[in-house]
Amino acid sequence: MEKSPHAGKPIRCKAAVSRTAGEPLEIEEIEVAFPIDWEVRIKILCTSICHSDVTFWKLKAPIGVFPRIFGHEAVGVVESVGEKVTEVKEGDTVIPVFISNCQECRDCKSKKSNICTKVPFRFFPGMPRDGRSIFKDSKGEIIHNFLAISSFSEYTVVDVSHLVKIDAGFPPEKACLLSCGITTGVGAVWKAAQVEEGSTVAIFGLGAVGLAVAEGARLHKASRIIGVDLNIEKFEIGKKFGVTDFINPAADCKDKNISEVIKEMTDGGADYCFECIGLASVMSDAFNSCRKGWGKTVILGVEKHGSPISFSPAEILWGRTFTGTSLGGIKPKSDIPVLIQRYMDKELHLDEFITDQMGFQDINKAFDLLTQGKSLRSILWMDP
Amino acid sequence: MEKSPHAGKPIRCKAAVSRTAGEPLEIEEIEVAFPIDWEVRIKILCTSICHSDVTFWKLKAPIGVFPRIFGHEAVGVVESVGEKVTEVKEGDTVIPVFISNCQECRDCKSKKSNICTKVPFRFFPGMPRDGRSIFKDSKGEIIHNFLAISSFSEYTVVDVSHLVKIDAGFPPEKACLLSCGITTGVGAVWKAAQVEEGSTVAIFGLGAVGLAVAEGARLHKASRIIGVDLNIEKFEIGKKFGVTDFINPAADCKDKNISEVIKEMTDGGADYCFECIGLASVMSDAFNSCRKGWGKTVILGVEKHGSPISFSPAEILWGRTFTGTSLGGIKPKSDIPVLIQRYMDKELHLDEFITDQMGFQDINKAFDLLTQGKSLRSILWMDP
Repeated sequence: MEKSPHAGKPIRCKAAVSRTAGEPLEIEEIEVAFPIDWEVRIKILCTSICHSDVTFWKLKAPIGVFPRIFGHEAVGVVESVGEKVTEVKEGDTVIPVFISNCQECRDCKSKKSNICTKVPFRFFPGMPRDGRSIFKDSKGEIIHNFLAISSFSEYTVVDVSHLVKIDAGFPPEKACLLSCGITTGVGAVWKAAQVEEGSTVAIFGLGAVGLAVAEGARLHKASRIIGVDLNIEKFEIGKKFGVTDFINPAADCKDKNISEVIKEMTDGGADYCFECIGLASVMSDAFNSCRKGWGKTVILGVEKHGSPISFSPAEILWGRTFTGTSLGGIKPKSDIPVLIQRYMDKELHLDEFITDQMGFQDINKAFDLLTQGKSLRSILWMDP
Repeated sequence: MEKSPHAGKPIRCKAAVSRTAGEPLEIEEIEVAFPIDWEVRIKILCTSICHSDVTFWKLKAPIGVFPRIFGHEAVGVVESVGEKVTEVKEGDTVIPVFISNCQECRDCKSKKSNICTKVPFRFFPGMPRDGRSIFKDSKGEIIHNFLAISSFSEYTVVDVSHLVKIDAGFPPEKACLLSCGITTGVGAVWKAAQVEEGSTVAIFGLGAVGLAVAEGARLHKASRIIGVDLNIEKFEIGKKFGVTDFINPAADCKDKNISEVIKEMTDGGADYCFECIGLASVMSDAFNSCRKGWGKTVILGVEKHGSPISFSPAEILWGRTFTGTSLGGIKPKSDIPVLIQRYMDKELHLDEFITDQMGFQDINKAFDLLTQGKSLRSILWMDP
């Protein structure tokens, strides 16, 4: 394959830049640095919006950092690579993932962890190994990256430890879904909770991640999958992913707490509870809804307000477990290929998560659909 | 064997009665009902004092209930049995345990739970199946029982689901230790945490339960066992049970939090943390001291003030787990015999937990030694 004409040089391209917290993104021409060391420059094929993009887009300074290019669910093609990269080459199709997977550190080698310690997660902007900036605007000012990905751009630079190489023939819009949200939900059932056949599962929040938990629970042959959401339309959607029972806490609980209702429905509590909203009060509800003896509650949602979780120590003494996960406990490089195979074997449902497809220039419309609860995932194509 | 001359009749005997919260116990003559249905009347051989006895002895009304006979660590001999009991007979040596083990319910049949649901734990006084009272004082007034055991009495009545039959030749003072505290600590490592060889372990509170955690960690070949206690004398004691490092938070942490100190000592945090004190703030410290990726914190202590546990949701998203256990996750009837065998095989240390032995009439002295941190376990013999 021929070398990219831009190899070793910056690329000018279009990106959706967020200049002010919560304000519409602006499509601007930007400059993307060329990759060095372990970096890979990618031409994005398509991207989608995850709730974490929205959470951080709304965050004002000092935690919110602007101008910034958000986006971390995507698929792309390698345009050029840094001099230390051997794992992928120009033309390879790759999924970028917000957690790294060096495959060498104690965590990557352990079956118990997916939190790579060699290339640690970077909450603040910058490339993971040296913190450098890769984007500039037309005035030469720095634009910050996001979660080491920044996929709301025609081109971006990602560390090779954050990339999963996939078959070029796999449909990009399906691959895009496996970059974060759907993998998180399915992975939480498979890896973090290890749900067994015949288990009862309760899911708090039926957004795309919650529905992916349902899909995972269906794949793992859970006997009962209880969806909890304030939007009753989610029940019909949820049925496609295996949801068997639905509770709207505002209408169905009367004077009872949601945990009491779930305990009654399940003769003592669900075997597994999943919090997919990101509210500390719901995390406590989920914990209280799981069964004594072995009930396990898994937190997937990023708490929206930074509030602490609080619960009674007496409740935990009876053998309940509380745990949390990033990307559902999935190790990107080894586990995402398994999900791809399960999709190709027609076991894993992915198509149903795509509610809209549009051109990249319509990104603000896609933000609106997601924040209004009208979409699960909108696929934004870079070259419509 | 001959039937007891008291079979089918009440027995009059001596017991240490707690009439007022926190006040010395009084040795009184009491009447013990004869056993009905699944009940078993036991002649106590020896008993010891666990911190839970002290916690409930100090609790004032309405949670504290008086007059009451405390005590739940003991060993005894069956005097007579109710008409439905076939598992044990007169003359058998038994360990009473505060959690039941019917061996028939879904929990008892599951490998994941030790919380029997057929004969559920009873927080309030009364026999577990029907709530009846079994003790009266000399005026015919009810004296309440405790945790379905009440071993501070020459005779007591216990449901057969709460009894473990053991070999009559096993030393009673060693058997007594396996009734609660030591089993809880060793079990928490074995069953609740499932500590692997080479793990790092941090133990918050080196009372008998915390030292039993150390002993369990030593048995499971942990590479490093860090004891945390405000009493520096505990380090010398702890070495007998495998403690390799000691931290006195008041002296050794300077301006750092204990969790920072442990993270520095262990290159990121302990693999397993155990809270053996019963303070919500220490539970949070323990959680924050465990490693990202797979760190697991196990709560063993009963919170002394009923305070809620609180921690940051951001901390749990990195794969940490928080769990709690009663009796360390041990199923009394199947697992305590394994511990007995490990003692007989000279693997499990028990002798070192016995710091004093005295007659039952000296029970208030034993309370003083425990509350002053001067004893691990005092064995109180009914027939000195």
